[in-house]
Amino acid sequence: MIIRIEPDSDIPIYTQITNQIIEGIARGNLHFGDSLPSVRAFAGDLGVNMHTVNKSYHELEKKGIIRIMPKSGAMICSAQELKDKASLEKLSEAFRPLVAEAMVLGMEKEQIGELMKSIFQSITEKES
Amino acid sequence: MIIRIEPDSDIPIYTQITNQIIEGIARGNLHFGDSLPSVRAFAGDLGVNMHTVNKSYHELEKKGIIRIMPKSGAMICSAQELKDKASLEKLSEAFRPLVAEAMVLGMEKEQIGELMKSIFQSITEKES
Repeated sequence: MIIRIEPDSDIPIYTQITNQIIEGIARGNLHFGDSLPSVRAFAGDLGVNMHTVNKSYHELEKKGIIRIMPKSGAMICSAQELKDKASLEKLSEAFRPLVAEAMVLGMEKEQIGELMKSIFQSITEKES
Repeated sequence: MIIRIEPDSDIPIYTQITNQIIEGIARGNLHFGDSLPSVRAFAGDLGVNMHTVNKSYHELEKKGIIRIMPKSGAMICSAQELKDKASLEKLSEAFRPLVAEAMVLGMEKEQIGELMKSIFQSITEKES
């Protein structure tokens, strides 16, 4: 799986890494139980600071998507672990301000639903 | 409209303010063209640093939701301005990693749609 860093983006680099790993899992390019590269190797590959990769891994751990083990490194959780640890409530809280923003832009419930469908589609379809 | 600050939340205080102002507009407690309090007055009311309110106002300005004018202060954009300035594409980009996260948690397109509906509903219904 190829991670593309956009240095000029408004989105911090560690979040770009986090988001692309999550999309990689969603799209099936990365799999439950897969090991992630070591922080050092990944940072070297991407040409970013080790601190940046570290921050991304910790963000993924906080979301309940990966496990970080002292010796064996970072590993994507199993589907079951993900369901146990990751919280739908937290995800719902994260969606909330964006839904409010969409409402402020005049979007109706149905339009927001359509937007979600098109994003879902584009994640599924996009080749990486 | 009452802003509730949760000091122990994971969400930075300036983002809590931003989100609640957006929800206030979505819910009709705040209106297009309304003036927002001065940074000093608002910070005093909320018991937070002026810098925090400032950061929130600039975040709202960046999203194209308010205008900040040197003399008259911060003002919520008109509905038309909002449609012109705020970018659906940016909003869609913001939704994208959350949709991917929902997919990783095993949610199907329809379930994500249902989640959106329930958030929409809870924003509309919630009294402030």
